[in-house]
Amino acid sequence: MTELADYTRQLAEQAQQASRALVGATGEQKNAWLHRSAALIRERGKDLIAANAKDLEQAPQYGLTSAAIDRLRLTSDRLESIAFALEEIALLPNPIGEIIDSNVRPNGLLVTRVRVPLGVVFFIYESRPNVTVDAAAICVKSGNAVILRGGKEALHSNQAFHGLLAEALNDVGLPQHAVQLVETTDRAAVGHFLQMADKIDVTIPRGGKTLIERVASEARMPVIKHFDGICHLYVDKAADLDMATEITINSKCQRPGVCNALETLLVHTDCAEAFLPKVAGRLTEAGCEIRGDARTRELVPFAKTATDADYHTEYLDLILSVRVVDDIQTAMQHIQEYGSHHTDNIVTNDLQAANLFTTSVDSAAVMINASTRFNDGGEFGLGAEIGISTDRFHARGPCGLKELTTYKYVVHGNGQIR
Amino acid sequence: MTELADYTRQLAEQAQQASRALVGATGEQKNAWLHRSAALIRERGKDLIAANAKDLEQAPQYGLTSAAIDRLRLTSDRLESIAFALEEIALLPNPIGEIIDSNVRPNGLLVTRVRVPLGVVFFIYESRPNVTVDAAAICVKSGNAVILRGGKEALHSNQAFHGLLAEALNDVGLPQHAVQLVETTDRAAVGHFLQMADKIDVTIPRGGKTLIERVASEARMPVIKHFDGICHLYVDKAADLDMATEITINSKCQRPGVCNALETLLVHTDCAEAFLPKVAGRLTEAGCEIRGDARTRELVPFAKTATDADYHTEYLDLILSVRVVDDIQTAMQHIQEYGSHHTDNIVTNDLQAANLFTTSVDSAAVMINASTRFNDGGEFGLGAEIGISTDRFHARGPCGLKELTTYKYVVHGNGQIR
Repeated sequence: MTELADYTRQLAEQAQQASRALVGATGEQKNAWLHRSAALIRERGKDLIAANAKDLEQAPQYGLTSAAIDRLRLTSDRLESIAFALEEIALLPNPIGEIIDSNVRPNGLLVTRVRVPLGVVFFIYESRPNVTVDAAAICVKSGNAVILRGGKEALHSNQAFHGLLAEALNDVGLPQHAVQLVETTDRAAVGHFLQMADKIDVTIPRGGKTLIERVASEARMPVIKHFDGICHLYVDKAADLDMATEITINSKCQRPGVCNALETLLVHTDCAEAFLPKVAGRLTEAGCEIRGDARTRELVPFAKTATDADYHTEYLDLILSVRVVDDIQTAMQHIQEYGSHHTDNIVTNDLQAANLFTTSVDSAAVMINASTRFNDGGEFGLGAEIGISTDRFHARGPCGLKELTTYKYVVHGNGQIR
Repeated sequence: MTELADYTRQLAEQAQQASRALVGATGEQKNAWLHRSAALIRERGKDLIAANAKDLEQAPQYGLTSAAIDRLRLTSDRLESIAFALEEIALLPNPIGEIIDSNVRPNGLLVTRVRVPLGVVFFIYESRPNVTVDAAAICVKSGNAVILRGGKEALHSNQAFHGLLAEALNDVGLPQHAVQLVETTDRAAVGHFLQMADKIDVTIPRGGKTLIERVASEARMPVIKHFDGICHLYVDKAADLDMATEITINSKCQRPGVCNALETLLVHTDCAEAFLPKVAGRLTEAGCEIRGDARTRELVPFAKTATDADYHTEYLDLILSVRVVDDIQTAMQHIQEYGSHHTDNIVTNDLQAANLFTTSVDSAAVMINASTRFNDGGEFGLGAEIGISTDRFHARGPCGLKELTTYKYVVHGNGQIR
């Protein structure tokens, strides 16, 4: 126990030291590290795949499903895309040092807000080893030191990746402790880190709801949470129904297992008859089960019954809840009551309906005439993301480089006094 | 206990309802409320002073110092300045609905970030009744509902102000629960509110360190903290010594009891002899006690001895710690070790020293050639402030209207799918 306390404290102290040194790193240095890391990943593909083989060997004893084992597996194609992602992050502008805004005061003081790193990020995630590389890249590019706590199922892969990332830091003259991996699988380590508000500036848990809830309740520092995506699509009476059909199919079926996939379809009663049977046919062709209220089932006889619990459920699967509503207000009330403030969309050609919806619906992303699947850092133009925040504070929606920064006031005077 | 739980929950629910209605309020409506409130404060001056008299009567039994009693007292001049402050807030631009940035994606999606209110603010403060009006104005102008928890010493004054503010909300057609006052003085009420993370979006405690620490440790929602200001001034070897003298005197003596007042003066050894005796004379004239290290005391024989504890102390009084340092690195290390990351200033004409200092010193405000007293919402051009954050997350430094907001992504498409 004391050993674990010492070990975690040492990592946190080293991270804090590294973060202070990173503040002054130039964009060029950080990009050199990204390119060097990509080169090492390509050079040492065999070693990485060998380390990964150890994890794959142990996977059945951890009870991993075949889908989880597949996500864990490294192949040379996957290594290439991990290396390529680093090069893409190198292309993004360096966020640090940007003057966010400035203001010359009547007395001549120049008041500027300058973007600076948050400091030390504690990142907790599950089994996919590519996340190790991605998260390290996003944190360091935004000037933060990171402590990575991956899943035990990927420990060997993570150690191998971490070794390369640290080697690359050393090669380009950046502090080696800018990226550290928690090498113990003892779950109590997390609890130690969560107490260190004086050393860790933000904790980002990515994984199941239980993990996030545990972290949010134990952490003494700010947490960027990533909860459910119970996403809605409301098809207004003034919708283009062909567009609504394509958007429904894409939102639900393109990748049903992710947080920005559609879970509930709300349809205005005036277009329900023209829209629902048709879209239901397309959904069924795509293998999607439909659960509807009574009015839906009148129009789609093969639909199952949607219970109140269905409307509260993030299926992450080929199942869709459907409800027919009398008006846009009822749709918005439904979203307020059952939604998770993640992504909620409207299909309409009515400007007033569009404005009312975007003003009143309080979600991280509210979209008009587009698929819910676009709520994503890459699609929004952030370049890369470390998660999608369902919080309101500090960062909302996709978290890219800027969301891992804060600011300080830098004020230039020439002798001003009050 | 159950009664208190019900009462606090009712307030929080009412606040949440009001905050949803406030999202759609126009700048004009919010300004009409500010003007109506100012008019009512002027009209009902007698009632306000009568309510305040009850608080003043009870003040001795609460053990208030004469300074605290003075801060509690309302006069017609003070009422006028409270009313005038409301009119000044009305002049500030409405922050809500601003498009913070936008981005047209290659597929034609228009991705915008739109400024929206945080939601419900729980504001805990001590005895000055003008803060009741100020805080309500800042919260409502930024589209937030607020639950005000003032000190028991000011309860009657706060009730009188709250009555007018609520009446004005009603007069202009804004939700009356946008501003609510906790009318019980039971301290357990605070604990109830701090658990309601589903109803309250941010808690802002303003007061002593014990209060802030209690709130930060109990709160289940984000907290904007306002801790110590152990502010430093470093006089570089390349400083204009006359400027350094004026800035030292102003930073320390203009208002020693506030968080942006100077607490520690660091002087480069090369200019210590020319600077310290002179500034020490001026400080002494102003009634300020000097506590210095050995090298300071050689040059200022009447200085007392500064202990390590002195350098850790926010005096909030006419006392100044002084230390002579060999170089800018030592000055910055001192600030890192002893400072509170609030306000740290340098006086220098050397561009390299200025750049090094502003890049390396990690404080909410870092200033060159200006008084520490400028770290203030009004002086920085924010127009009004609800506090000065010593946190890194979400809001740093003075918190004005924008710091009480967040954003959502509003995305405009014409049928895009992935």
